[in-house]
Amino acid sequence: MRVEIWSDIACPWCYVGKARFEKALAAFPHRDEVEVEHRSFELDPGRAKGDVQPVITMLTRKYGMSPQQAQAGEDSLGAQAAAEGLDYRTRDRDHGNTFDMHRLLHLAKEQGRQDELIQIFYRANFAEERSVFAEAEERLVELAVEAGLEAGRVRAVLADPDLYAAEVRADEREAAQLGATGVPFFVLDRTYGISGAQPAEVFAQALTQAWGRRSPLAPVGQETADACGPDGCAVPQQG
Amino acid sequence: MRVEIWSDIACPWCYVGKARFEKALAAFPHRDEVEVEHRSFELDPGRAKGDVQPVITMLTRKYGMSPQQAQAGEDSLGAQAAAEGLDYRTRDRDHGNTFDMHRLLHLAKEQGRQDELIQIFYRANFAEERSVFAEAEERLVELAVEAGLEAGRVRAVLADPDLYAAEVRADEREAAQLGATGVPFFVLDRTYGISGAQPAEVFAQALTQAWGRRSPLAPVGQETADACGPDGCAVPQQG
Repeated sequence: MRVEIWSDIACPWCYVGKARFEKALAAFPHRDEVEVEHRSFELDPGRAKGDVQPVITMLTRKYGMSPQQAQAGEDSLGAQAAAEGLDYRTRDRDHGNTFDMHRLLHLAKEQGRQDELIQIFYRANFAEERSVFAEAEERLVELAVEAGLEAGRVRAVLADPDLYAAEVRADEREAAQLGATGVPFFVLDRTYGISGAQPAEVFAQALTQAWGRRSPLAPVGQETADACGPDGCAVPQQG
Repeated sequence: MRVEIWSDIACPWCYVGKARFEKALAAFPHRDEVEVEHRSFELDPGRAKGDVQPVITMLTRKYGMSPQQAQAGEDSLGAQAAAEGLDYRTRDRDHGNTFDMHRLLHLAKEQGRQDELIQIFYRANFAEERSVFAEAEERLVELAVEAGLEAGRVRAVLADPDLYAAEVRADEREAAQLGATGVPFFVLDRTYGISGAQPAEVFAQALTQAWGRRSPLAPVGQETADACGPDGCAVPQQG
């Protein structure tokens, strides 16, 4: 079974939702047969790469909140994160463009390191003091190496904005086609869609439902096709 | 869209079927959004690792064919392969155990090199003079390096029969659960199943059918979940 998760590193509910999903997955009897794939979704694609702001400043300027409202929101998210056992700095976090992180997540996917890297990015963005947006290149290289990627390859991707850009855009187009307007957005076997950081019980139910409808497959084509099996290969004798 | 292909390197119809599938895929308008994954299926899992035989000898002993029948079968397969533009040695090919090749295909999958490696294995087994079964270790290292894998890692996998063994067995269990009794076996989005090396037109039809039913997703869970979107993150204010 395949689970695709659209998310953004700058999305607190993605960080929390991933933990809730993983709680359900850890208890799912068929967890070893579930593959998880992370897909790109930028919440703030219009922000220039170097445009870094404190989260509270971004919330007041972009959404017209008062600083008190913005801080109360961060405190509330911090409490939700804590309830899932996650560290969350409710003060002095930065906000910025996440395109380069998404490109690196596609590099990591090719190398079987995507889940490691997204978790390291989340932890760095939400729980660690050092910004992932300021002095981003050095910071991202350090984090990607921690996930098992090779520093030279990571630097090459960061230096060329075209690398993996098409993959990020394709993920975003696909999210729109599937009806996602926000993140996190979970898709199970391209059949069930789950919007948002729902309770672990909802993920557990969805995993069970998706598992239950996995078979039978609808056959396509002729029944007596050319194939090899335990009795050998069906071979038409030439005339 | 995801296509999973169960196959064995020792399966002539898998070699031919892959070419037919790829012909359909190359003409499919959404080909860039199709991911192909190769899954393990051994036709002759009971054969000991060092038990290497000429294909004709294997066919006569295992299936009771006459040497003439066996050779006619190989000639027929060679003609089918040629019709797809594939080289096929109809004489003096070897047969043997493919477990190690399947383990290496799982290593290659982790590194984004699986399709390269399986194609190189097929070519080596069906078209090249040098056996993939005799002096297998050196031969497999050479082929895996050609696919972009690192020689040291390949040797480590070959030296430890437990590495990626569980992944091969899990693929084989899953094939049985999905109803596959022979290979090649193609599964599109876990919805459509195609048995055997069907004509390219069948694959084209299946790709179109599977693409057409991709959406809409069935929603699971509450509609108003905690998520972030273009208007910010829904955050309950703490009371």
